Amino acid sequence: MFQAHIKKLVDSTEGGVAGLLMGYDGIAVETYVVPDAAAPDMNTIGMEFSFLLTQVKKAAESLELGAVNEVTIRTERLTVLMRAAGPDYFVALAIRAEGNFGKGRYLLRVVTPKLLAELA
Amino acid sequence: MFQAHIKKLVDSTEGGVAGLLMGYDGIAVETYVVPDAAAPDMNTIGMEFSFLLTQVKKAAESLELGAVNEVTIRTERLTVLMRAAGPDYFVALAIRAEGNFGKGRYLLRVVTPKLLAELA
Repeated sequence: MFQAHIKKLVDSTEGGVAGLLMGYDGIAVETYVVPDAAAPDMNTIGMEFSFLLTQVKKAAESLELGAVNEVTIRTERLTVLMRAAGPDYFVALAIRAEGNFGKGRYLLRVVTPKLLAELA
Repeated sequence: MFQAHIKKLVDSTEGGVAGLLMGYDGIAVETYVVPDAAAPDMNTIGMEFSFLLTQVKKAAESLELGAVNEVTIRTERLTVLMRAAGPDYFVALAIRAEGNFGKGRYLLRVVTPKLLAELA
């Protein structure tokens, strides 16, 4: 189910700390955070970023750029990758700044259709 | 000056269509768009995305994730890469969906400190 896919996504990415499947309304379907005191509060991050993603979707629409497939935000402490899973949901992966971004992005692409299939 | 750096950034990236140096207030310092009727309106895209970047910065601050270094938005038609150039400006590069994203990102990292040095 969702949890197994998300756990595998996070655990297989070097530096991966958290992952979630969330609606654009900011309500998480499933969240997984590595058992580590320093791990970020993924639900709060997800809620903030679901709002941002909604803004990005609106902007892309008004600019006629088509559907938004992927958004990446790199900050000093964390890289957050988000990928659309159909029109209502997205999958997010948080990686430490020194983690393997390329692998995380690849795994996110692989797992998203699987999660989408289970959402249907 | 700015124009030469931005033109080189765009022209050296396969699929690169436009680049700009802009303030977070949405006012462009310099813009370069490839001479192509199908090229996007980079000033409008920049203005929309400067607003989004400001929102991302605020979110990252409230989530204690540190400074935002880079934001990437991939849509069906275009990939837009944005990189912070100091606290007030950012550099953006727009690449066609089938263009060389990795090279664009690399070149954006190389050119940003040069632009920042000229802004000072």
